[in-house]
Amino acid sequence: MAQQKAKVLIVGTGGVGTMAAYALETGGKAEVTAVMRSNFAAVQKNGIDIDSVEYGHDIRGWRPTIIRKTIPNVKEENLQPFDFILVTTKNIQDIPPTVADSIEPAVTAGKTAIVLSQNGLNIERPLIKRYPTNPIISSISYIGATETSHGRILHDDVDAQKIGPFDNPGVPLEVAREAAERYIAIYNADGKLDIVFDADVKFVRWRKLVYNASYNSVASVLHMDTPRMRMSRHIVDDLIRPIMLEVIAAACANGVEIADDVPDKVIRADPTTTAFKPSMCQDADKGNFMEIETIVGEPLREGEAKGVAMPTLRTIYGLLKGIQLQFKERKGMWEAKFTPDNPYQ
Amino acid sequence: MAQQKAKVLIVGTGGVGTMAAYALETGGKAEVTAVMRSNFAAVQKNGIDIDSVEYGHDIRGWRPTIIRKTIPNVKEENLQPFDFILVTTKNIQDIPPTVADSIEPAVTAGKTAIVLSQNGLNIERPLIKRYPTNPIISSISYIGATETSHGRILHDDVDAQKIGPFDNPGVPLEVAREAAERYIAIYNADGKLDIVFDADVKFVRWRKLVYNASYNSVASVLHMDTPRMRMSRHIVDDLIRPIMLEVIAAACANGVEIADDVPDKVIRADPTTTAFKPSMCQDADKGNFMEIETIVGEPLREGEAKGVAMPTLRTIYGLLKGIQLQFKERKGMWEAKFTPDNPYQ
Repeated sequence: MAQQKAKVLIVGTGGVGTMAAYALETGGKAEVTAVMRSNFAAVQKNGIDIDSVEYGHDIRGWRPTIIRKTIPNVKEENLQPFDFILVTTKNIQDIPPTVADSIEPAVTAGKTAIVLSQNGLNIERPLIKRYPTNPIISSISYIGATETSHGRILHDDVDAQKIGPFDNPGVPLEVAREAAERYIAIYNADGKLDIVFDADVKFVRWRKLVYNASYNSVASVLHMDTPRMRMSRHIVDDLIRPIMLEVIAAACANGVEIADDVPDKVIRADPTTTAFKPSMCQDADKGNFMEIETIVGEPLREGEAKGVAMPTLRTIYGLLKGIQLQFKERKGMWEAKFTPDNPYQ
Repeated sequence: MAQQKAKVLIVGTGGVGTMAAYALETGGKAEVTAVMRSNFAAVQKNGIDIDSVEYGHDIRGWRPTIIRKTIPNVKEENLQPFDFILVTTKNIQDIPPTVADSIEPAVTAGKTAIVLSQNGLNIERPLIKRYPTNPIISSISYIGATETSHGRILHDDVDAQKIGPFDNPGVPLEVAREAAERYIAIYNADGKLDIVFDADVKFVRWRKLVYNASYNSVASVLHMDTPRMRMSRHIVDDLIRPIMLEVIAAACANGVEIADDVPDKVIRADPTTTAFKPSMCQDADKGNFMEIETIVGEPLREGEAKGVAMPTLRTIYGLLKGIQLQFKERKGMWEAKFTPDNPYQ
């Protein structure tokens, strides 16, 4: 008898989540439940159209096994426990609800492994606190995949991920490791994808921050694509490179060694022939909340706690918080009070 | 016989220049020639309407003695030399033409005193180089005056200025000082205005930069008014105060002592009951060029040259240069080249 398919819940069905759903279902080893919000009606009606660099440019009307509008409540709905919950939503720690809160009804204690496909540092902490007996797994993704409109995905850069277990003190390392390896096995069922196990989660995360804390955050303040940024000596020399060096110094102070040639490599990483904007900048352009704390705030705090001077990143942090405050105001979540006794004067 | 009226050319007839024209003409000791550009037609037709906190709220159809569209060419037009040229335009050192270039046809060597009513550091240098025998005078203005539409001025904060001679090595200090004092005498003809002589030009300029380099530049990056900025602990503590302390350290290293209590005073200087935006921020909102070099670049260079660490201001400088680059692109003065061999990679 064939092994039972793994039950996977996917929370966040933009480009990254949808391509994960596609890989997991078509691999034949998983059954996916996808939670959709703004795109639910469009996908229920017409399915998903995918233009993929890896699976073909003309996939039409595809659907995962189950789509639904809300997080399942496993107990109340009397569902089988989920083996995995893959979270690909943005991680906005300064805006409720948190990831830990929102997935709660779908988590079975001691059973469900939670895969966080999100950038930045210390994203596992609230999950470990809330779910001390569940494996928490890190995925750092390098895919290029965007939902161009509801139910339409442009997958223009190959799916590559580094996956490993976060250190959850309540879960034996071997159990967490096995969960990560099983996730890779069902995701990369035919072994053709570049989805690899990497136990050094800390390194993988700091290494990706060299790009994200610099390009993402500066692009978001400037509303500028990365090729244009590279055309300006001021932006590269006064902003991008200093931030990279600060992040590398912070990593080093936290026991993570990043090679000296990384800044020059990462400065030149993006193509220069198209006006690519990092995801945080796309959010900033739309007035959507940005992942400030996990991408900028946490590395800043980790570095400063070890005595590393990070003045460039701290300045960018203050600016991003100022921009986020204006986004909150526009969405009615913060009110400016023009009183003579302004509380913070 | 009454003394002949001083001939004053005013270049830049926004709020500050127009109120200067009004004070000079109505004082009876000066005859003003005002150079108008975008507002020329409106003022020629209807004159200027002024709503003034000092002169009355209902001044209608006022005109200076002469209005014209271009800088006069004293030699070619066979005009009497100007005693004073007052420059109130923005000082955008990274965008031609420079102030020194544009006023040249109106300057009579060894005669015309040039009054620079502009903020920032080292603005006198190109003038001294070009006009080595002319008195160059500093005016730091604290007036609140805005051209709300062509030919309409809202003058909502009193005219206060600190005026003194820049140190021009080719002009005896006594001559420069007399020119500054004569300018004050014709401007403040009835002695009622708070227009005072202050020989310590360097101090006056650095002191005003404590506000301008911090609030103006951060407001411009954030597109945010100063009361809202003060409602955010991040903006005040991570941005405004660090910049103020860096500017004060740079001033100190350059022999200008600014008292310890200045940051706290300046942080609280603006009213909190209306959404006031500093002038550079108003420019940024409109996509107009910002006075980056005189307000931010020069204090940064002066401080760093003396070994002062100014990382917060350097970060803001890089961002402002990035924003200015995008303004240049929008105005067709810079072209992005999306080539694989990007020159600055």
